Amino acid sequence: RAYSTAAPKKLTIGLIPGDGIGKEVIPAGQQVLQALPSKYGLTFDFMNLKAGFEEFKNTGVALPDETVQTLKTKCDGALFGAVSSPTHKVKGYSSPIVALRKKMGLYANVRPVKWVQGQGIPVDMVIVRENTEDLYIKEERIFNRNGEKVAEAIKRISEKASWKIGKIALEIALRRQKVREQTSDSIHKSASLTVVHKSNVLSVSDGLFRETISNLYKQDLAKYGSVEYKEQIVDSMVYKMFREPQIFDVVVAPNLYGDILSDGAAALVGSLGLVASANVGDNFVIGEPTHGSAPDIQGKGIANPIATIRSTAMMLEFMGYPEPAAQIMAAVDANLKENKITTPDLGGKSSTTDVVEDVLRRL
Amino acid sequence: RAYSTAAPKKLTIGLIPGDGIGKEVIPAGQQVLQALPSKYGLTFDFMNLKAGFEEFKNTGVALPDETVQTLKTKCDGALFGAVSSPTHKVKGYSSPIVALRKKMGLYANVRPVKWVQGQGIPVDMVIVRENTEDLYIKEERIFNRNGEKVAEAIKRISEKASWKIGKIALEIALRRQKVREQTSDSIHKSASLTVVHKSNVLSVSDGLFRETISNLYKQDLAKYGSVEYKEQIVDSMVYKMFREPQIFDVVVAPNLYGDILSDGAAALVGSLGLVASANVGDNFVIGEPTHGSAPDIQGKGIANPIATIRSTAMMLEFMGYPEPAAQIMAAVDANLKENKITTPDLGGKSSTTDVVEDVLRRL
Ligand SMILES: CC(C)[C@H](C(=O)O)[C@@H](O)C(=O)O
Ligand SMILES: CC(C)[C@H](C(=O)O)[C@@H](O)C(=O)O
Repeated sequence: RAYSTAAPKKLTIGLIPGDGIGKEVIPAGQQVLQALPSKYGLTFDFMNLKAGFEEFKNTGVALPDETVQTLKTKCDGALFGAVSSPTHKVKGYSSPIVALRKKMGLYANVRPVKWVQGQGIPVDMVIVRENTEDLYIKEERIFNRNGEKVAEAIKRISEKASWKIGKIALEIALRRQKVREQTSDSIHKSASLTVVHKSNVLSVSDGLFRETISNLYKQDLAKYGSVEYKEQIVDSMVYKMFREPQIFDVVVAPNLYGDILSDGAAALVGSLGLVASANVGDNFVIGEPTHGSAPDIQGKGIANPIATIRSTAMMLEFMGYPEPAAQIMAAVDANLKENKITTPDLGGKSSTTDVVEDVLRRL
Repeated sequence: RAYSTAAPKKLTIGLIPGDGIGKEVIPAGQQVLQALPSKYGLTFDFMNLKAGFEEFKNTGVALPDETVQTLKTKCDGALFGAVSSPTHKVKGYSSPIVALRKKMGLYANVRPVKWVQGQGIPVDMVIVRENTEDLYIKEERIFNRNGEKVAEAIKRISEKASWKIGKIALEIALRRQKVREQTSDSIHKSASLTVVHKSNVLSVSDGLFRETISNLYKQDLAKYGSVEYKEQIVDSMVYKMFREPQIFDVVVAPNLYGDILSDGAAALVGSLGLVASANVGDNFVIGEPTHGSAPDIQGKGIANPIATIRSTAMMLEFMGYPEPAAQIMAAVDANLKENKITTPDLGGKSSTTDVVEDVLRRL
């Protein structure tokens, strides 16, 4: 996918708020899109779509077919809020976001974690998480062995998916490098890719992940040679991420490690409420804040909308509109740098609406 | 296993230094045992045993049968250093520590992370990691699907192993509570157990882990009721561990999450070189620093011996000798509190030998 601005047009965006604070933050994304300067020549239509645990409790279905069909046939992109997880196993329920990623072929989950002056510790990394396989294929079984229950789950790693995620990660590394040359707004001098694995134990499966990406890199050094290639075992990665996060640029990981690492990275910048993501496929992208449905603060109007606003920018970027995306990101950074109008998770006293209005003012 | 002091006797301890700095820190454990005051009535014999990647390169075997047999028939406990992992897949090589844990039936890996005044942030938690199953069973296969390689690994969770790890975790929680009542040397007022899982995705396998421990707790409230029972999804656990580590006391986790979490916890106290562990079974215990073989500092004489010294204390504790264990721990804490004679990983300038000597002086 090219990152050039396409011809002016009307974009249809699916809005899937889901549960809890998902309902409170998704409107922020919609408002930001509506407020974009006309110079970009973009207008938006929105379609409200259903999914989530509440939907499941009402209808018995967590991800209605209609939602998937509407996304596939009518939408150019989408925003997903959050879904709550039942505390105990509920028969027939299965996380709609995991299903959506697979059904829409969104093979990459891109999660940037960036420090803004004055907030947390210097970090500017992006976790590129494989989004379709690993233990997330959910092939599980349970059986009896000598009167005791034994459960098994399959972790699947394919050459194909590893290659695709490695490729997009390397491309993101190149692109970040280019942006950096123009703006010098980064803690990094040069680009690097860190491949995360546990192949000292899982030599076959994580071994395949690692080798596939290593081969991909080596086979096209003409293209990727300016990106430094590194590897980290997942446990040691978590340790280093907290001891010296500034050494990481692009990090690529199988699904589960990527899930764990991105929450860890969020802790580095002070709040999960800041961390955005994009679920990216060859033909579709869904922006998604990485936080959950946060039942503890639901309904209080204090959910941090920044993660959703940044996810909206990421959605635009991966749809091929980097300029409006950059403008949204700059408005968010300005809000954070000033550090006055912020929600309680960042130590502030402002409401969701206050923060949205401040970002809109800066657009 | 009871925690009372057994009758005075001679203990035979297996020493398995392994690779890299393993060879530099295991002698510290030996010296500390030899220096224990005679009032404990313990004397020690040591047996040097082989294992590791170097051993594999020399002989083609990473964990000689003789090592396992000697441990089983001649030793009362053991200390394991570290093994290096080959950077790329080496045919026939498989981590000896993973094999050892299984062959010796060491079903629990107990990893305390404790803050010492003046160092890092307040934390006093212990990660109790299941040590025999999960993805560590290493049942992997690779096959061709439409000309592409696909690899699969099995994650196995049994009711039996989950029950055993839950039980030892709850017992550790009760014991910590008791020690606390006597010493008031903790940031915790009361005991808690946090069960880590990802059953919002792995409802069958991680579901079994969670339900087994939850049932175990509920079925014996008379015994465990004073311990607060909590659950955390693994990604959110990593986030919380870094945002508010002081809320965690005993944390129990399947093998892989436990591996990742304990490296994360190590980052909280400033260095992997501080974090000890004990691999505990019903009849045997192996103390093991959680750090690796650290090829970057190998041979420089600056490896931090604290993790090994603490692991030596843990070995004694789980062998049934809590008093000498507590004395070793107190000597280490005194060294850390003074914060003068420390290795470079803690910002100091002292050598391994300097630190060992300082701890011996304080015994
Ligand atoms: C809700 C859950 C299934 C999901 C995941 O594990 O992918 C979430 O943690 C995330 O990171 O988006
Ligand atoms: C060396 C490796 C196999 C080992 C593990 O994953 O268990 C190590 O990381 C540990 O934590 O003891």
